[in-house]
Amino acid sequence: MSKPLILVTNDDGIVAPGIRALVEVAAQFGEVIVVAPDSPQSGKGHAISIHDPLRLRHVKVFDGIEAWECSGTPVDCVKLAKHVVLKGRKIDLCVSGINHGSNSSINIIYSGTMSAAMEASVEGIDSIGFSLCDFSAEADFSAAKFWATKIIEKTLQSPFQQGKLINVNIPRLPLEEIKGVKVCRQCDGSWVETFVEGRDPSGSPYYWLSGKFVNKDKGEDTDEWALKNGYISIVPSMHDLTDYKSMGWMENQFKQLEQQ
Amino acid sequence: MSKPLILVTNDDGIVAPGIRALVEVAAQFGEVIVVAPDSPQSGKGHAISIHDPLRLRHVKVFDGIEAWECSGTPVDCVKLAKHVVLKGRKIDLCVSGINHGSNSSINIIYSGTMSAAMEASVEGIDSIGFSLCDFSAEADFSAAKFWATKIIEKTLQSPFQQGKLINVNIPRLPLEEIKGVKVCRQCDGSWVETFVEGRDPSGSPYYWLSGKFVNKDKGEDTDEWALKNGYISIVPSMHDLTDYKSMGWMENQFKQLEQQ
Repeated sequence: MSKPLILVTNDDGIVAPGIRALVEVAAQFGEVIVVAPDSPQSGKGHAISIHDPLRLRHVKVFDGIEAWECSGTPVDCVKLAKHVVLKGRKIDLCVSGINHGSNSSINIIYSGTMSAAMEASVEGIDSIGFSLCDFSAEADFSAAKFWATKIIEKTLQSPFQQGKLINVNIPRLPLEEIKGVKVCRQCDGSWVETFVEGRDPSGSPYYWLSGKFVNKDKGEDTDEWALKNGYISIVPSMHDLTDYKSMGWMENQFKQLEQQ
Repeated sequence: MSKPLILVTNDDGIVAPGIRALVEVAAQFGEVIVVAPDSPQSGKGHAISIHDPLRLRHVKVFDGIEAWECSGTPVDCVKLAKHVVLKGRKIDLCVSGINHGSNSSINIIYSGTMSAAMEASVEGIDSIGFSLCDFSAEADFSAAKFWATKIIEKTLQSPFQQGKLINVNIPRLPLEEIKGVKVCRQCDGSWVETFVEGRDPSGSPYYWLSGKFVNKDKGEDTDEWALKNGYISIVPSMHDLTDYKSMGWMENQFKQLEQQ
């Protein structure tokens, strides 16, 4: 059997320590191709570049690993990887990260890391986003690497069906304090923003986004609960955003509309 | 009873004909505040600006309507509207659009229009994204306005619970040919990309994203089906991306991991 083809990307940029950790993990299992942003792209969500041309440069960043940096978003990287770099070759697995900072709960919708993985899953590719709950550039990725190795190995042995996506978050703990993995649902939470207001050198006002995550969910089956309790959280995630539970109510709501 | 407070935003920018149409509709029902991007932001998905300060300018674009243009993404606009422009005042409804072009099926995840509406729904605000299946700057919004009026009126009379989100797409048809509304699920589809390759004036290569939407879903309960058959599609949508149906399988998958 030929070695699996693994696409590695991220949103912190191709020189971030987190993607280096993930490349080292992935290289144990197959042929690794890296296509990642040439600059930090945190918070870019599922943005794509429609109005601007993209640049793609072959770079030597990882020993013995083919790597490309791209001027676009994380989702652009996945599209370019598939169509331009790999010219349609079958990708067996896409891994994104390891993100510097949590992508649990509502963070999934803002996250370039998770959006890149989701883009691959839309294409029917098994996809895993990995995030370490530590924003520091000096974060210790050793426990994250240990568990990413186990999760990737298992996924290659027993692939998901039809391009599933999982959101893996790793608590900021030494390896021996991590209790294991928990399959969870996405916690209900949101950010309470505060805008830092200031004046630029010419005296014009600006607003700089900041904020604090607030957990609104007391459930013990969520990713936030797992992380707080020493577990790695795994949330099976998807791009079908239909709120099936609300369909009946909505049908009633808008049926009346027709009768007006 | 005081008039409802309606936030209007979009992703095509504050001078697009589509947002003018939506402002005219919303102004029939309440106090309208517009906070919209100062430039086209199509395809920006749920991107937020973390690394850059935002600009917010009070502008006179719509007669008698308070309007602000923002240098950021559609999601930034909603955050700035809530915290800076409205300083936490209760928003009764957020409407986004009317987008120039479809946001049915998988387009919801790339769409700035829908991401702005989703951001409001994360904050517990009833939210509606409107899109007309016509990319033209000269698109005729008259049928879209007629139906947006009915949908907004109904939603204000009978609010959704806890900040629901609906994705409304309107076919490119004259009013008399639109058969009504259908509550649907999100169609399973994706884009087949083609990158237009070229050389810039200095001879360096670039890649420009293009592509074609492919419907993979033969169901007659989808938004694509509704639009093809002359209906307005309404998809109740949500930001909980948990793939609940896959949780059992994933638990088995990763339970074995613990036992290794």
